[in-house]
Amino acid sequence: MKVAVLGTGMVGKAIATKLVSLGHEVTMGSRSAGNEEASGWASEAGDRARHGTFADAAGAGDIVVNCTAGARSLDALRAAGEPNLAGKVLIDVANPLDFSHGMPPTLSVANTDSLGEQIQRAFPDAKVVKALNTMRCDVMVDPGRVPGEHDVFVCGDHEQAKREVRELLRSFGWADDSVIDLGAISSARGTEGYLLLWLRLWEALGTADLNIKVVR
Amino acid sequence: MKVAVLGTGMVGKAIATKLVSLGHEVTMGSRSAGNEEASGWASEAGDRARHGTFADAAGAGDIVVNCTAGARSLDALRAAGEPNLAGKVLIDVANPLDFSHGMPPTLSVANTDSLGEQIQRAFPDAKVVKALNTMRCDVMVDPGRVPGEHDVFVCGDHEQAKREVRELLRSFGWADDSVIDLGAISSARGTEGYLLLWLRLWEALGTADLNIKVVR
Repeated sequence: MKVAVLGTGMVGKAIATKLVSLGHEVTMGSRSAGNEEASGWASEAGDRARHGTFADAAGAGDIVVNCTAGARSLDALRAAGEPNLAGKVLIDVANPLDFSHGMPPTLSVANTDSLGEQIQRAFPDAKVVKALNTMRCDVMVDPGRVPGEHDVFVCGDHEQAKREVRELLRSFGWADDSVIDLGAISSARGTEGYLLLWLRLWEALGTADLNIKVVR
Repeated sequence: MKVAVLGTGMVGKAIATKLVSLGHEVTMGSRSAGNEEASGWASEAGDRARHGTFADAAGAGDIVVNCTAGARSLDALRAAGEPNLAGKVLIDVANPLDFSHGMPPTLSVANTDSLGEQIQRAFPDAKVVKALNTMRCDVMVDPGRVPGEHDVFVCGDHEQAKREVRELLRSFGWADDSVIDLGAISSARGTEGYLLLWLRLWEALGTADLNIKVVR
């Protein structure tokens, strides 16, 4: 599969590296074609790794993963270009973290809206699936890093897109019954709001190698 | 122990009934001394159950449990009276649910503040501990209702008060290592923000008999 990974930070690199290791052709996208983080990653990650602008990457991908910082995600996706996103599964991994009030960060959108919904509204022809934003990137691509059973959530308005994301999550190591479909993209308010608890758990427990299991 | 339970809804009744069953003397408080929910509960709950105004209850209690609807909690506590709360452990079980935007509810305070903090600021001489607000009331007082291990959070600025709440939670059936201390009362932003996920889980899974286990 051809995948665009937008974002060159820890999350983008972790996702892009995992995808290459699974045999996918990955283009890492950033603001400028000469981005050193992206070119450095691509030169180390092997034959299936490329890099370019957000538009280059989104144009090359059959699916697109938004790993940019939440505060800049809408700008990055606009730079990627609506035609390059139309009809594609767009996995939104970002959280709208706002560091302007100090630590821990707050959310720049919360409660009555979410970044996932903002993206779906801005790009109505993309099939946005919110997923993986409830944990650190090491755990996203290696759930076994946290022992025992724990869960990942998917939110989105497009059922077939959620099925494709579920397949991708399975290839990352997520057991099928650990993937909880929360419903429409509006349920991203739930998984983004959970970040407020996650940040406090990280602080209180002294580790970000954590996740939650929904028990019922 | 003498306990004031403020609120006559499902949560107040569940907590008050559990406390009476554990041998405590409980006064259920409401806006008016003649509240039928409160008098009905007290007449059924036996010798250790009483009822009265918010002020009657808070005055009679060595500790106070806020089980009022979050939107009305500050008014209820003002009616209880600052002198009746000063120096006491005040367990805040409420969530600031806002039903004005339809279902599922949103939060009337979130992200950069929390109801727990608002209460601590309004009543600086009370020792506020946010706890038990991350699950339905049946699970609060009977954690075995949800099978397996799952967790409850405490948040507050007063260490001794959190120790006392931990003891109370143990008497409710919570294993000591299922009680996670998230730190200061500001971490109530985390447990109240989690409600946004909890509400979506309830909808998606079709049951409110659920809770989360933090895995690490």
